[in-house]
Amino acid sequence: MRFDVLTLFPELIESHMSFSIMKRAVEDGIIEVHTVDPRDYTLDKHRKVDDTPYGGGAGMVLAPQPYVDCYEGVNKLDNSITIMMTPQGEPYNDKIANELAQYNQIIILCGHYEGFDERIREIIKPREISIGDYVLTGGELPALCLIDSVSRKIDGTLGKIESARDDSFSDGLLEYPQYTKPREYRGLKVPEVLLNGNHKLIEEFRMEQKIVRTKTKRPDLWEKWRGK
Amino acid sequence: MRFDVLTLFPELIESHMSFSIMKRAVEDGIIEVHTVDPRDYTLDKHRKVDDTPYGGGAGMVLAPQPYVDCYEGVNKLDNSITIMMTPQGEPYNDKIANELAQYNQIIILCGHYEGFDERIREIIKPREISIGDYVLTGGELPALCLIDSVSRKIDGTLGKIESARDDSFSDGLLEYPQYTKPREYRGLKVPEVLLNGNHKLIEEFRMEQKIVRTKTKRPDLWEKWRGK
Repeated sequence: MRFDVLTLFPELIESHMSFSIMKRAVEDGIIEVHTVDPRDYTLDKHRKVDDTPYGGGAGMVLAPQPYVDCYEGVNKLDNSITIMMTPQGEPYNDKIANELAQYNQIIILCGHYEGFDERIREIIKPREISIGDYVLTGGELPALCLIDSVSRKIDGTLGKIESARDDSFSDGLLEYPQYTKPREYRGLKVPEVLLNGNHKLIEEFRMEQKIVRTKTKRPDLWEKWRGK
Repeated sequence: MRFDVLTLFPELIESHMSFSIMKRAVEDGIIEVHTVDPRDYTLDKHRKVDDTPYGGGAGMVLAPQPYVDCYEGVNKLDNSITIMMTPQGEPYNDKIANELAQYNQIIILCGHYEGFDERIREIIKPREISIGDYVLTGGELPALCLIDSVSRKIDGTLGKIESARDDSFSDGLLEYPQYTKPREYRGLKVPEVLLNGNHKLIEEFRMEQKIVRTKTKRPDLWEKWRGK
């Protein structure tokens, strides 16, 4: 899987990719992450990529020329998709992550400042995705969330593929509670059922816990699950 | 505002904070971001912080001792809140970001691997927050999203405070379309109304656009807004 990220702050993407599990996924050749900076494509002699908004208002708007030219400079593979990270997009979730994991290439547009000139949307026609109903200073963290969550779905990124299969949301419910050593810590004990080696009972306990948690913490997910 | 982040990968937090607007917010003394590594608190002679899950299953679970001791080692200020980043938490949004911006200190617990031993939750009793219904390899990106979105709410982080006030969600609706120079790009023109300097008409146009967009792209937000 190849990711191409259009960003004015390539360091934010690159520095993150040089640590932890993402670093390993890159080193193992499971994912490739490239960045490209619209600033390198601007025709403005002062290397500007933004300007004040028509109609007034605070902040700066990303101008169409540098972004569109930069986008057109990206080499597109077969089976490629283009995504714009924006608070106005469809809410990202585990289902979309699974869908995206089927592509060979994901091109990601990161905004900054007050956002994109509307014509960037009209020309590039990206799929618009929001990682949540809050606003960040730029699209780089959302892009990293997308890269991370999609990469986890690709065989080889995690130590064992099972660890992704048991995650929250993978079956529409929240994850069951986890316990590790010691059996007792500050008076709090690991539930007896997890210690007796009876796999049927363990599975029942975990399923029950998933249901209780989802019902209590996320009634919206619970309603959706029940309706399936 | 002071952030204390408990993480096994302090570099992921620190490297991100050394770029762009977050860097400036730190340099200007608007926010302070500290990291602390539970691995420095483990009593295990091999410096282990995790172990296999009781009851079986893939992946590793974060053991209670290093996290709880690490947490207890953090100096708590007045008006402090503790947050655990977890897919099981309440869905994060702009309203919560506003709420969190009122604290003097936010202590953030980042997980990794298969998640926290349940007793960490029971002892620390953090507010549990999820940045969205997808799963990441760790809590560091969610912590950065939280730090970024909360910091934006603090006077001084952005160039002008107005830029945060016009954001998507700040009034429960998506943002209006933005345009900057040139007036025409590849045959696409800036809407006439934005060019004539009539502020009343501009405001009407923008409000109309916000409503149309929210209705079309996010009927769920629209229903909420109408019900207000």
